[in-house]
Amino acid sequence: MLGAQINHWLTRNREEGIQLLQKLVQAGSTQGNEAEAQALIAKTLLNIGLKVDRWEPDGNELEKHPYFASPRTTFKGSPNVVGILKGTGGGRSLILNGHIDVVPEGDPAQWEHDPFSGKVIDGKMYGRGVTDMKGGNVSLLLALSALRALGIPLKGDVFFQSVVEEESGGAGTLAAILRGYKADAAIIPEPTNMKIFPKQQGSMWFRIHIKGRSAHGGTRYEGVSAIEKSLLVVDHIRKLETRRNERMTDPLYSKIPIPIPINIGKIEGGDWPSSVADLVKLEGRMGVSPEETMEEAKNEMKSWLEKLADIDPWFKQQPVILEWFGARWVPGAIEKQHEFVTSLSSSYRNVLGEEPVVEASPWGTDGGLLTNVGATPTIIFGPGITEKAHFPNEYIEINKVFEAAEIIALTIVNWCGIEEE
Amino acid sequence: MLGAQINHWLTRNREEGIQLLQKLVQAGSTQGNEAEAQALIAKTLLNIGLKVDRWEPDGNELEKHPYFASPRTTFKGSPNVVGILKGTGGGRSLILNGHIDVVPEGDPAQWEHDPFSGKVIDGKMYGRGVTDMKGGNVSLLLALSALRALGIPLKGDVFFQSVVEEESGGAGTLAAILRGYKADAAIIPEPTNMKIFPKQQGSMWFRIHIKGRSAHGGTRYEGVSAIEKSLLVVDHIRKLETRRNERMTDPLYSKIPIPIPINIGKIEGGDWPSSVADLVKLEGRMGVSPEETMEEAKNEMKSWLEKLADIDPWFKQQPVILEWFGARWVPGAIEKQHEFVTSLSSSYRNVLGEEPVVEASPWGTDGGLLTNVGATPTIIFGPGITEKAHFPNEYIEINKVFEAAEIIALTIVNWCGIEEE
Repeated sequence: MLGAQINHWLTRNREEGIQLLQKLVQAGSTQGNEAEAQALIAKTLLNIGLKVDRWEPDGNELEKHPYFASPRTTFKGSPNVVGILKGTGGGRSLILNGHIDVVPEGDPAQWEHDPFSGKVIDGKMYGRGVTDMKGGNVSLLLALSALRALGIPLKGDVFFQSVVEEESGGAGTLAAILRGYKADAAIIPEPTNMKIFPKQQGSMWFRIHIKGRSAHGGTRYEGVSAIEKSLLVVDHIRKLETRRNERMTDPLYSKIPIPIPINIGKIEGGDWPSSVADLVKLEGRMGVSPEETMEEAKNEMKSWLEKLADIDPWFKQQPVILEWFGARWVPGAIEKQHEFVTSLSSSYRNVLGEEPVVEASPWGTDGGLLTNVGATPTIIFGPGITEKAHFPNEYIEINKVFEAAEIIALTIVNWCGIEEE
Repeated sequence: MLGAQINHWLTRNREEGIQLLQKLVQAGSTQGNEAEAQALIAKTLLNIGLKVDRWEPDGNELEKHPYFASPRTTFKGSPNVVGILKGTGGGRSLILNGHIDVVPEGDPAQWEHDPFSGKVIDGKMYGRGVTDMKGGNVSLLLALSALRALGIPLKGDVFFQSVVEEESGGAGTLAAILRGYKADAAIIPEPTNMKIFPKQQGSMWFRIHIKGRSAHGGTRYEGVSAIEKSLLVVDHIRKLETRRNERMTDPLYSKIPIPIPINIGKIEGGDWPSSVADLVKLEGRMGVSPEETMEEAKNEMKSWLEKLADIDPWFKQQPVILEWFGARWVPGAIEKQHEFVTSLSSSYRNVLGEEPVVEASPWGTDGGLLTNVGATPTIIFGPGITEKAHFPNEYIEINKVFEAAEIIALTIVNWCGIEEE
């Protein structure tokens, strides 16, 4: 009965939902340019009838926090926006968290349409950030709108959070936690392609400096090539990845070829074709299991690199140097049996008539911060698709946005409860 | 008798020789800044009593020549200087060729003394270019000065050439050849540490583009890492180097661990720690044997890289791209039995009382152009040491400059002959 009402409301308001998503895409919102999109969010929340809390995160306060990771410490012009829907009391509270920041559009020549057009073709909307994750954010807003429009009296509080800075390490969500927002559960509609992720791997970036000894290329045997040594390091890291992944026995990872990958994404070394390279730098991303801490992962990498000296005595003389730099995402996990997983799964079945896929995510989200720092058990579930995030011609299937909205609306009702009339 | 005269003259004029070398070092002469040093050379040649030919190479003419390789095509302010000493007739002619250009000094912090000071400490002079190859050039000038001062009437012509642009591929020497300078033999006093090199390997620079397929680092198994593929390419090139060097059976190479090395000097790929790298570029230097042409070497590299497809089917889809770019030095060789080798070796024995070491050089010189384009059989023999060339704190042992001058003076007499009185 309630399900049918929500479904009808979403159908009747389909055009408005599409327009909201289009406007959000058109507003851009790369790092530092979030203000326009956030103003639109705040206006939408006020229209729905929520109280709005809007503030610029305090860089000085954030910097002191051990979980802070961001390339910037000032958030002037980059506000967080939270919409507050107080319940009638006695229900469980819920955070709906979506990040408003999008990664840069990259080379415009690789886009078939203007990346900030929000163009709709054959049921898909195109644009930077539409799948990661404005489509998911609109699902949340539609769910709230439907419940408000239908006059459903929720018992628990609901907090809609439109946060900045997820793409650079989660400073926006950390700021919301430090402002006091906690709840009995949270949902983040990152692009999971409608899969349910109760676990998310964390990740952190590393840099490895590998030394060689310079010489003229014509007498290269008088030098030690940092490029050749770097091959050994890459191979050694590959073996560490294998070891770490052999430990991942949780069935949530059973369909993932490499649950917590170690990616080496950049290599750079040497400065002259005819000289032996005396320095190579590797940069990469280490996946962190929900079953370990960031520190444990760091220590394992450190000890493993020390073993290089057993493979090649050169590394005894010139040990590689390991640095952790840049972005970092804390892993997050709740039990597959957690009641919020059950609640979301049940809504999924009701709306789509099939079993949801429950898996672990291959990437980090703000869920790690919400779960571990904010003490708010978090699930990742959204309508977008990972494969399009961060790529040219990013798009989302519009139908999925509405399906997710319906599932989330039912979940809110299930979780927060309804005041009996 | 003549040997003793030359030796005495060099001893009496030691201070002037050291001062000349110091002034040449102080004059600098990195690419484009050769004018001051060339003016000093021209003045010295005039003082000795030679005719001087000074001209700026013609970039338009050079560009048409298949052996031209230089990053620039205009030589305004970068003259070649040739000193001409006409013989009395009936003797063999000789070119004495030294380049005036020096490579940049690099990071000044790595130098113990100002790189353009020419400071003398414990019998060594320090400075950029002192070993490569102003020390050798001064040996040539001292040899000529001694013969002129002693009034020795040579039968053959001697041409002293102070050329620009050796460090960038030999445009200065090519310009001298195109101006008509040829001889029955030539000597280039590059830093061989008093070894005699009748053969010099050539070299050329290559760039290899290795493609991958991008993906998010958290799902790296969905991409193809150009960094991992580049490891296979580096390994494959190492095997080509082995094959090519197994063919080098000439005893002149017997003491050289890798006669014609292939050096991979630069690697660069990927642009984000958390993405799978979709492109890696390698840059390197391929040694070219005196027994092969540049084209043969290029073709061998090309065919070898095509075999990558047998090692990994990925390279069938995405063959690597090979480019030849930048600098290039033509190999050069004369027979070990050539009369000029015998002549130089004999002078060496007379001056130093021991057998010279006769070897093949691990690097290219302008000798390849002189021998192959200028039809002038060339030997490389000089007082500097390779290990200090192009490095911080470059120095030369001053005694070696005078020993080389004495050996070269005797060689000029042997080779060109003396008019009987």
